[in-house]
Amino acid sequence: MKLYDLPGPPSPRRVRVFLAEKGVEIDIVAVNIREGAQFKPEFAAINSRLTIPALELDNGTVISETDAIQRYLEEKFPENPLFGNSPEERAVVNNWLRIIEADGFMAVAEALRNGAPRFENRALTGVRNVAQIPALGERGVNRIGYFFEDLDKQLEGRKYIAGDTFTVADINALVTVDFAGMAKQSVPDTCANIARWYADVSSRPSAQA
Amino acid sequence: MKLYDLPGPPSPRRVRVFLAEKGVEIDIVAVNIREGAQFKPEFAAINSRLTIPALELDNGTVISETDAIQRYLEEKFPENPLFGNSPEERAVVNNWLRIIEADGFMAVAEALRNGAPRFENRALTGVRNVAQIPALGERGVNRIGYFFEDLDKQLEGRKYIAGDTFTVADINALVTVDFAGMAKQSVPDTCANIARWYADVSSRPSAQA
Repeated sequence: MKLYDLPGPPSPRRVRVFLAEKGVEIDIVAVNIREGAQFKPEFAAINSRLTIPALELDNGTVISETDAIQRYLEEKFPENPLFGNSPEERAVVNNWLRIIEADGFMAVAEALRNGAPRFENRALTGVRNVAQIPALGERGVNRIGYFFEDLDKQLEGRKYIAGDTFTVADINALVTVDFAGMAKQSVPDTCANIARWYADVSSRPSAQA
Repeated sequence: MKLYDLPGPPSPRRVRVFLAEKGVEIDIVAVNIREGAQFKPEFAAINSRLTIPALELDNGTVISETDAIQRYLEEKFPENPLFGNSPEERAVVNNWLRIIEADGFMAVAEALRNGAPRFENRALTGVRNVAQIPALGERGVNRIGYFFEDLDKQLEGRKYIAGDTFTVADINALVTVDFAGMAKQSVPDTCANIARWYADVSSRPSAQA
C-alpha cells in the first residue's frame, strides 16, 4: 500500500499519528500542494476526489476518506489496537469518532473555510468550487464552543475519551483541537478536563507526527 | 440491548433496515415524538444528545450515533455481514459510508433543515437550538446534485456500491435517496446507474423497515 501525504493540514496528520501509535512504517508519497500537485491530472488519476490523505491499496483501489484509511490500517496492523478492546469499548470509540467528526472537525472546517479569505470559493474540499457562507463561518465558531463543552463533559472522570484506553478517538480529537487553533479558537479555561487530557495526549511522541 | 426508535425520520430507518437485513430482532422502544417525548427529561436521562436512534447496551452505555449503532450490531450479529467480506471490500464500504454521510445525508439535512419553516431554529439536531441559514439550504440542494453524480459514477459497472456484495453502504444510500425526496430532490434522469440500483435495493423486503 502507498499513502499520499501532505504536512500541515489536519486530515493527513490523523493518519500519521495513527501510524506512529501503531509503530509501523508504510510507503509515503508527499504531494506538493505548493506546486498545486493536488489539483493536477496526475493526482486526479490517483484520487478523483482530489483530497489528501489517500491510500492506494495493493489491489489498486484508492481510499480517500481518513476514517476509512484508519480502519483499514487497524485491520492490516492489528497490534496496538486503537479502536478499543471489546465490542462495548469499540461502540464508545465509534460513537465519539462520529461526534468528533460532525461536531468538532466539521465545525472547525466550517469556521475556517467560510471565514478566511484564502479559502474563497473553497468552502469545501473536493472537486467542485463552493462559495463561502459567512454565516456558516460564524455558526462554526459557535459549534466549536459547543464541542469543547461536550468533550469536557465526556472527559470528566475518564483518562481518555473512551475510558482507560488511548484510542483513535483521542488522536482525532487532538488533531481537532489543534485544527481549531488554525481557526483561532482555543479550549476555554472552563474546560479543565480537556486541558488535563490535552497535556497528556499531546506529550505522546506520536503527536509530533 | 434496547433500541430507541422512531418511525419516519431517516436515521432510525437506517438501523431498522440494517436489522431486517441481519434477520434479527432486538428490544425496541418507540419514542413518541408527537408528544415531544424526545425532548423530555426522561429521554434526556437516556440519551443526553436527544437524538433517535439510540442504542442502550447491556452495560448501560448509550450509543447515539447511527454509524456506531450499525457497527455494534454487526459485531454482535456477525452472520450476513454487511460491512464487506475482506479488508479491501471493507475499505471501500467504509470509504463510501463517509462519502454518503458527508456528501449525501448531510447535504439533504442541510437542504431540508435550512429551508423548511418547520425547522426554524432546528437547523441541526441535538440539544442546542441553531438558526437556519437560507444560503446553506441552497448549497445543500446543489450538493445533493453533486452526490447523485458521484454515486452514479461509482455504480457504473457495479451491482452494488462496493461491488457484488450488498452492504450497509447500500442501506445508507437508499435511505439518503428517500431522504432527498423529503427535501423535494429526486435522482436526475441522467443517473441511469442509480435508477437501476435503486429499483433493486428498494425492492428488497428490508426496504420496508
